[in-house]
Amino acid sequence: MDKNNIAAIVFDAYGTLFNIASLDAKLSHYFGSDAKPLAQLWRRKQLEYTWLRSMMNRYKDFINLTEDALLYASKKLGLSFKDAIKQDLIDTYYKLDTYPEVGEALQLLHSQYQLAILSNGNIELLKGSTQHNGIHGHFAAIYSADTIQQYKPLPFVYQLPVDGLKVSKSKILFVSTNTWDVAGAKSFGMNVAWIKRDPLNVTEELGFEPDLIIEDLMQLNYQLATSAY
Amino acid sequence: MDKNNIAAIVFDAYGTLFNIASLDAKLSHYFGSDAKPLAQLWRRKQLEYTWLRSMMNRYKDFINLTEDALLYASKKLGLSFKDAIKQDLIDTYYKLDTYPEVGEALQLLHSQYQLAILSNGNIELLKGSTQHNGIHGHFAAIYSADTIQQYKPLPFVYQLPVDGLKVSKSKILFVSTNTWDVAGAKSFGMNVAWIKRDPLNVTEELGFEPDLIIEDLMQLNYQLATSAY
Repeated sequence: MDKNNIAAIVFDAYGTLFNIASLDAKLSHYFGSDAKPLAQLWRRKQLEYTWLRSMMNRYKDFINLTEDALLYASKKLGLSFKDAIKQDLIDTYYKLDTYPEVGEALQLLHSQYQLAILSNGNIELLKGSTQHNGIHGHFAAIYSADTIQQYKPLPFVYQLPVDGLKVSKSKILFVSTNTWDVAGAKSFGMNVAWIKRDPLNVTEELGFEPDLIIEDLMQLNYQLATSAY
Repeated sequence: MDKNNIAAIVFDAYGTLFNIASLDAKLSHYFGSDAKPLAQLWRRKQLEYTWLRSMMNRYKDFINLTEDALLYASKKLGLSFKDAIKQDLIDTYYKLDTYPEVGEALQLLHSQYQLAILSNGNIELLKGSTQHNGIHGHFAAIYSADTIQQYKPLPFVYQLPVDGLKVSKSKILFVSTNTWDVAGAKSFGMNVAWIKRDPLNVTEELGFEPDLIIEDLMQLNYQLATSAY
């Protein structure tokens, strides 16, 4: 990767800009000690359902699929709860908090690069959380997999910002915390930075390694501004 | 589902006929108390890699992908081991044991129906384990996703036994323990029996429920032989 060749930076949303742990307080409130296994299984099923529905050719949008994953996880763990609780949890997806450094880092990166979001989430979810955090103004565009009713890591999805920003994929740096997403974007042909927010995480064995490994977005800004890598 | 209309029964392999727990003794021998988390993560990644590689259009066969999943799981859990141990574990995939009732049930079912296997596994893996258990003679055919380099739950894969056995999908009963596979086959249009080997397991929230839920293959034979459902 030649950092002088990068024209646009495209960010994944969940786990990358927005912290899913924003749900933890509500989950703990409603489920006590069951909150942690519920959160883990919910997130895992949410991902699995994007992949399985893509393969089955049975698209369902991210909000509804996230509800299905919550229903599965609660059923599997033997938990039951009222519709109002489900709705409260789903509503939180419209106003997830960013990780602490995201606002400042985006401001710095925005002065040098075109910025965009590419996510499996519905556009209204993404707009909701960017506005909630006051970071909406930094993005030239927000791309949702929902536009083409396909999920990452299908190559068509990574094509969205290439077409939308009119920038070749070799000039795009894609940034994600999610290891499968890193492999998907790299397989598609983008430059890829992996945010290793969890120091114990490892890359996937899918044959595609990131060009850059960083701990957070401030470090991305630093690395792009220097020739440190 | 009209049981009088069933002409052929097609079985998934891993978890359905063959018990992955056949690996447990070796895993315990090599990894002690790390064996259980390693086995769980290995199996999960093995599945994920079939799905992710399908979506990325980066096919790799099941044996090699199973090695990759083992490498990921050991890396993630901070375990290291020699190539000889990896090879010993992979070799076990060629001679997995069946669940206890499988041999007797297949013999009974074989007298009434055409039987086949449809699996993501390489054909040599499937032949190895059927021969190891002396059940090879019960099957009219063994279909491997490897033939078309696509994995379940892509519809093309479920089409293999339809074309091979020359039986319409409405006359096929597909049998699987794997809940995502149950949804995939049902979405494709087959009749589906779910073997609920784990009493705590639940079906996926993917919009497709099995026609029949059984505890093991003897119960499948019983249910097909009677009008109990």
